[in-house]
Amino acid sequence: MNENFLELRNKIDKINIDILKLLNDRVELVKEISDIKDEFKVDFFDPIREQEMLAMVLKHNSGLLPNELVKEIFTVIFQTNLRFMGMNREKKLIITNKVDNSFKNIHQMFGIAGKEPVIIAGPCAVENEEYLDKVASLLTQNNVKLLRGGAYKPRTSPYDFQGLGKEGMKILSKIGKKYNLVTVSEIVDIRDLDEMLKYIDVLQIGARNMQNFELLKEVGRLNIPVMLKRGMSATIQEFILAAEYIAVQGNRNILLCERGIRTFETKTRNTLDISSIPIIKKETNLPIIVDISHSLGRKDIAVPIAKAAVAAGADGIMVEVHPQPELALSDSKQQLNPEEFKELMHSLAVRND
Amino acid sequence: MNENFLELRNKIDKINIDILKLLNDRVELVKEISDIKDEFKVDFFDPIREQEMLAMVLKHNSGLLPNELVKEIFTVIFQTNLRFMGMNREKKLIITNKVDNSFKNIHQMFGIAGKEPVIIAGPCAVENEEYLDKVASLLTQNNVKLLRGGAYKPRTSPYDFQGLGKEGMKILSKIGKKYNLVTVSEIVDIRDLDEMLKYIDVLQIGARNMQNFELLKEVGRLNIPVMLKRGMSATIQEFILAAEYIAVQGNRNILLCERGIRTFETKTRNTLDISSIPIIKKETNLPIIVDISHSLGRKDIAVPIAKAAVAAGADGIMVEVHPQPELALSDSKQQLNPEEFKELMHSLAVRND
Amino acid sequence: MNENFLELRNKIDKINIDILKLLNDRVELVKEISDIKDEFKVDFFDPIREQEMLAMVLKHNSGLLPNELVKEIFTVIFQTNLRFMGMNREKKLIITNKVDNSFKNIHQMFGIAGKEPVIIAGPCAVENEEYLDKVASLLTQNNVKLLRGGAYKPRTSPYDFQGLGKEGMKILSKIGKKYNLVTVSEIVDIRDLDEMLKYIDVLQIGARNMQNFELLKEVGRLNIPVMLKRGMSATIQEFILAAEYIAVQGNRNILLCERGIRTFETKTRNTLDISSIPIIKKETNLPIIVDISHSLGRKDIAVPIAKAAVAAGADGIMVEVHPQPELALSDSKQQLNPEEFKELMHSLAVRND
Amino acid sequence: MNENFLELRNKIDKINIDILKLLNDRVELVKEISDIKDEFKVDFFDPIREQEMLAMVLKHNSGLLPNELVKEIFTVIFQTNLRFMGMNREKKLIITNKVDNSFKNIHQMFGIAGKEPVIIAGPCAVENEEYLDKVASLLTQNNVKLLRGGAYKPRTSPYDFQGLGKEGMKILSKIGKKYNLVTVSEIVDIRDLDEMLKYIDVLQIGARNMQNFELLKEVGRLNIPVMLKRGMSATIQEFILAAEYIAVQGNRNILLCERGIRTFETKTRNTLDISSIPIIKKETNLPIIVDISHSLGRKDIAVPIAKAAVAAGADGIMVEVHPQPELALSDSKQQLNPEEFKELMHSLAVRND
Repeated sequence: MNENFLELRNKIDKINIDILKLLNDRVELVKEISDIKDEFKVDFFDPIREQEMLAMVLKHNSGLLPNELVKEIFTVIFQTNLRFMGMNREKKLIITNKVDNSFKNIHQMFGIAGKEPVIIAGPCAVENEEYLDKVASLLTQNNVKLLRGGAYKPRTSPYDFQGLGKEGMKILSKIGKKYNLVTVSEIVDIRDLDEMLKYIDVLQIGARNMQNFELLKEVGRLNIPVMLKRGMSATIQEFILAAEYIAVQGNRNILLCERGIRTFETKTRNTLDISSIPIIKKETNLPIIVDISHSLGRKDIAVPIAKAAVAAGADGIMVEVHPQPELALSDSKQQLNPEEFKELMHSLAVRND
Repeated sequence: MNENFLELRNKIDKINIDILKLLNDRVELVKEISDIKDEFKVDFFDPIREQEMLAMVLKHNSGLLPNELVKEIFTVIFQTNLRFMGMNREKKLIITNKVDNSFKNIHQMFGIAGKEPVIIAGPCAVENEEYLDKVASLLTQNNVKLLRGGAYKPRTSPYDFQGLGKEGMKILSKIGKKYNLVTVSEIVDIRDLDEMLKYIDVLQIGARNMQNFELLKEVGRLNIPVMLKRGMSATIQEFILAAEYIAVQGNRNILLCERGIRTFETKTRNTLDISSIPIIKKETNLPIIVDISHSLGRKDIAVPIAKAAVAAGADGIMVEVHPQPELALSDSKQQLNPEEFKELMHSLAVRND
Repeated sequence: MNENFLELRNKIDKINIDILKLLNDRVELVKEISDIKDEFKVDFFDPIREQEMLAMVLKHNSGLLPNELVKEIFTVIFQTNLRFMGMNREKKLIITNKVDNSFKNIHQMFGIAGKEPVIIAGPCAVENEEYLDKVASLLTQNNVKLLRGGAYKPRTSPYDFQGLGKEGMKILSKIGKKYNLVTVSEIVDIRDLDEMLKYIDVLQIGARNMQNFELLKEVGRLNIPVMLKRGMSATIQEFILAAEYIAVQGNRNILLCERGIRTFETKTRNTLDISSIPIIKKETNLPIIVDISHSLGRKDIAVPIAKAAVAAGADGIMVEVHPQPELALSDSKQQLNPEEFKELMHSLAVRND
Repeated sequence: MNENFLELRNKIDKINIDILKLLNDRVELVKEISDIKDEFKVDFFDPIREQEMLAMVLKHNSGLLPNELVKEIFTVIFQTNLRFMGMNREKKLIITNKVDNSFKNIHQMFGIAGKEPVIIAGPCAVENEEYLDKVASLLTQNNVKLLRGGAYKPRTSPYDFQGLGKEGMKILSKIGKKYNLVTVSEIVDIRDLDEMLKYIDVLQIGARNMQNFELLKEVGRLNIPVMLKRGMSATIQEFILAAEYIAVQGNRNILLCERGIRTFETKTRNTLDISSIPIIKKETNLPIIVDISHSLGRKDIAVPIAKAAVAAGADGIMVEVHPQPELALSDSKQQLNPEEFKELMHSLAVRND
C-alpha cells in the first residue's frame, strides 16, 4: 500500500505547488488591472465580471469536480484577490471606502477645535426649562459644547412619560441659544422632521429606529449631523449597513453611537460592545462615540468605562446628566448628578475648547 | 485603457481554466487515495496530512499572495475535496452516520414497550425517603418507568443546598428497587463514577458539564445509558460534538436532553429551543427528550409545552415532581405537585406500558 | 447561649404566626373591597391608594426597621394581595384584561369558520403577477384564505431588493380579489398608510418596527386587522406592551406573530421561542400565530415545527411559499415550493373551510 | 358604596400598622439573636432555620391567602431582616468582604514589582520545545514574567488536536525554568491535579469548567495561584459565586479572567464584557485580567482593546503569542506573531520589572 500511497501524495503536493504558482500569477494580473482602474477612477470590484468569470470556468468544467464545488473554490479565489487589493464586497460601501475623505470627522462636524474626545451631555428628557438651564450652565463650566435632551421619548409602555414633544424642542432650542450649545434630540416620527429642523442641530436616530429605513433615507437627504445609535440587538455589520442607508442619499455628517447590546447579563442594562469601536474605526470613515448611560444603566462605573471607551479609540462620550436624578421622569438610575458629572469630566481631563 | 484591460482579463480567464484543470487532476488523485484507504480500512480524513500539505505550500510561496490568503484558498480546496469524497468533518461523526444502527432508541435503552414518548420524572433533589416514596408511588400509578432525583446538586452558590450525596443515591436506589423503576441521577465528579454505578441506572451529565470532556470520555467507556444535557449556551453543533466524545469511546446508549438555552427573555428561566428537536433527529442517530422544568422554570405552561415537544418529535419528556413543591429545597417554582403531574400525564395521554 | 437563643427563636415564631394572621385578616378585607368594586364596576387596582397606604405606614414607623425596608415588605404585601385577587399591575393593560371580550379571535377577525389553525401563506415579496397567481391558486386548492406578500421590503442592505412598492400592492390586491383571498402586507413607512389601505386587508407591522410607536398609534386608530410581529430581540413583556400601544387607540383587531428571537444558535436563522405562545395566550386576549419561515430560516424542519406551534396553542401558522424558491429575490432558502407546501398542509390536516 | 368602602379601607390601614408593629418587634429579636451569634462567633445566616420558620408558618396557615403567597411575603421579611443586619446572601461572600485583606493582589501573587498591568503570554497550546523556547525568549526580552501554554486542550470536537498532555507540561516546565518564568496551564481533569502541581506554577480553570464545582473545591484547598476564567455564558454574579467556591476552601491566590461572553455578534469570537472589570473590582477583593485573544478571536484590534482593558481597571492582560501563528494547531487567527506582540507591549508601555 505505502509506496503507491506516497507516490500519490507526492503528485498532489506537486499539483498544490502548481496551483499556488497560478494563483500568484493571477494576483499579479489582478494588480495590474487595479492599477489601470485607479488611473481611470473606475470601481475595482465588479460583480458582473465575477459572474462572467465564473460562468466561463463552469462552462469549461468537464472533470470530476462538480460545478457546485468548483464554484465554491473560485468564490474564495475571487474574494482573497479582492482582499489582497485591500477591498472586499463590504468595503464597496460608501462609508467604508477609505480613500473617500468627504465624511466629516467629529470635530469638523460640530465645529470644535482640538482633538480631544467630544462630550455630549444632558438629561434623558427635557422636563422643564429650569432643569435644562442648570444642566446647560454646568456643561458650559466644563467646556462641553453639545447639549442633548429628549423631546419625544420612545417608551416601552404607552403609560410611561413620553416627553414634552414640541414644547420640549422649544425649551431645548432656547437654552441651546442662550448658552451657545449645539443641540441634540431624537426624532421618532418621520412626519416631525420639518418641525424638528427648526429647533434642533443634530438629529438622533435611536436604537429602536436603527432599521427604520425610510427615516434613514429622509435624514440622508439632509445636510445636518445625524447621530445613529446601534440597535439593541444589531450586529456591527447591520449597524454599518444602516449608516450606509443615510450615506447613499448624500449626507456626509454621520456620527455613530455604540450604546450596548442586549445579552443575558443583568448587572448592566446592556452589554457595552467595546470591540465595536476599533472595528468601526477600522472598517468605516465614520466617527463613533459611546453612550455610557444606556450601555450601563448605572452610574457607579461611569468613570472607568468612559476611560476605556476613549482608550479603545472612541471619538467621544455621551452621558446623561440631571440636576436631581432621583426626581427624573425617566432613567433616574443612570443619570449623573452635577457632582458626578464634574468628576467624570475631571477624570477624562477633556478640554473641548 | 480598454485594450490593455481586455487583454489582462483574457489572461486571467486563461489562468482560471488552468487552475480548474489542476483542481480536477488533483481530485482524481484524491479519489485514488480514497480507494486505497477504503481497501485498507484507513480513515480517509487525516488532519496531520492537511497540516503537512499546507506547510509545504506555504514554504514554496514566494509570490505576491500573502500566506494568510494562500492558506484560506487551500483550506477550501481541502474541504471541497473532502466533500467530493462524500464526507466532511461533521458528516464523519459516528453519531451522525445514518447507516449505523448500533445506537439504541429510547425504548430499547430503557426496556420500555410501545412507541409513546417516555417520561422521566421525580424531584429536583432527593431530600428524604418519605418524599421520594410518594413520588415513586405516583409515577407507578401513572405508568411512568423512570425516576429521577439529584443526589449531587451543582448549585451556583456554595451556600445553597448541595444534595444529600451518597445518602441520596442510596435512597434513590432503594426506592427504585421497591417500585421497580429505572433510576436517573447526575454525576458531577468523575471520581464518584464507581460509587454511582452501584446505585444508579442512568447517568445524567448536566448542562454545566456538557463540555467536561474527561467525564464524557469516562462515561463513553461504560455500557449503561448516559443522558447528556445541552449546555446552557451550547450551540446544537457543540451539543452534537459533545455526544460524539461519548460515542467515540464505544457507548451506544446515549440520550440527549434539550433543556433550554440562555437568552435575554425573562418570563422563562431559559428559552426552550424547540427547533433543536427535529434538527437532532434529522442529523443524528440519537434519541432526544425535553426537560420542560429547566426549560421553563415555571409550571403553569408545562402542559402545552410538553405537547409541543412531543409534536416536534421529542422521544420523551423530563419533568420535576415533588410532593410539596413549596417546601422543596431547590427549584420550588418549577416542580409540579402530584395533581399537576397527573394533569400533565392525562394531557399527554401517555401509556408506557 | 442555647436557652436564651431558643427562647428568642420561639418569640420570633410566635410573631411570624401573628403576622400571618393579620395578613389573612387583611386579605379578607381586600376581598370585600373587590366585591364592592366589582358591583360598581370600578377598577380594582388603584396606584394612588397604594401610595397613600404606604405613606401612612411610613408615617407610623418609629421602630428599628428603616423606611426603605418597610417599604419593600409592604410593596410585596400589596402585590401578593393583588395577585390573590387575580390581577397585577400588568394585568391592568387593556389587552390583558381577561373580562374584556371586545377583542376578536382569529376566526372572527378574518371571517373564517371552524376552529382549526389559520394559515397565512405567500411569497416573501411580490415579484410579479404570474408568480403570485400561481401561489394564490395553490392556496385556494388547499383551502387557505390569507395571502401574504411583501410590497415594501425592509432589507438590511440598501443594495438589496427593496420590493416593488405600490406596483406590488396593486398586484397583491388584484390577485386577492381574483381568488377571494384576504391580503396581508407589511407597512414600513407611516406616510404610506392611506395608500396601503386602498389595496391591503391586513397590515403587518414587521419585527424591525415593533417599537415604532408612532406607527403603532396610527394603526391603532384604524378598524382593520393589524398583525404585529415580535421584535427580534424583544422580550415577551415588550411585545405585549407594543400591542397595548395599538389597543389604547381603539383597534380591537390585533393579531400577534412570534417569529423567533436572536440568539447565538446558528443552525436556525432565529430561535423560535415556543414558550411565548402559551404565555401570550394566558396573559392576553390576543390571538397569536407563528411565522415558521423567519423563525427557522430553513424549510426542512417546517413540518415538525408547525405541528409543535399548533400543539403549543398557536392560533395559526404563517409560512412563505414561492413557485420556484431557488429563483426568489429574497429569503430563497426558507420559502417552500408548492410540493413542500402541500405536504405541510397535509401534515397539519387543516381545513379552514 | 362610599361609606362601607371607607370603613374597609380604614380597617386595612389599621392592620397595616399592626403588621408594622410586629415587624419592628420581630427585628428587635433578630438583633438580639445576632448579638448572641456574634459573641459566639456563629454564622448569622442559617438557611435551615429559614426553612423551618417557613414550614411552621405554612403549617399554621388556615386563612384565605394561599401558601405560595404567604411564602413570598415571608421570604421578603427574612431577606429584609438579613439586610437590616448589614448582610445578605451576596454580601456575605468571603471574596466580597471589603475589610478582608487576606487576598493577594496580582503583583503579590506572582512576586512582580511595580504597579503596571501584568502580562501573561504564550501560545494557545504547547506544540514543541523549539516554538516555546522562541516565545519564552521573546517574553524575556519584553520583561514579561508569566508564560502560558496549554498542555491539555478542551476542544469542541473529539477529532481536533487535544494538546500534548503530560509531555506538554514537561516542556512548559523546562522552558519556564530555563527563562525563570512563572508557568500557567489549564487543568481539565481533576485527576491530573497532583501531576500538574509538579510542573505548573499557576492553574488555569477554563471557561468550560467555571462551574465544575468539584474542581473548584479541590484547587481551593491548595495554596498556589488559580486563574479562573469566566464561563462563556456566565453572568458576573455566577462568576463571583464560582470564585467563592475556591475561596471557601481557603485559597487566597485567586485571579479572575474575563474572556468575553457569547452573544449574537459575529465580528468577534466573543463579546468582551468590559463593564465586568470595574464591577468585579468594586464588588470583590480579587484581581482580574482580560484575555484579549479569546475575547476577540482576531488580532487586528488587540492594541486598542488591551488599552481599553487597562483603562477600565484590569490588573493585566492575557494574550496568545506564537512564532508562526499561521501554522498553529489551534486558534491560528487570534495568536500574535512576535512583531505584533512587540507592538502590543510597546503600546501598553508595560514594564513588569
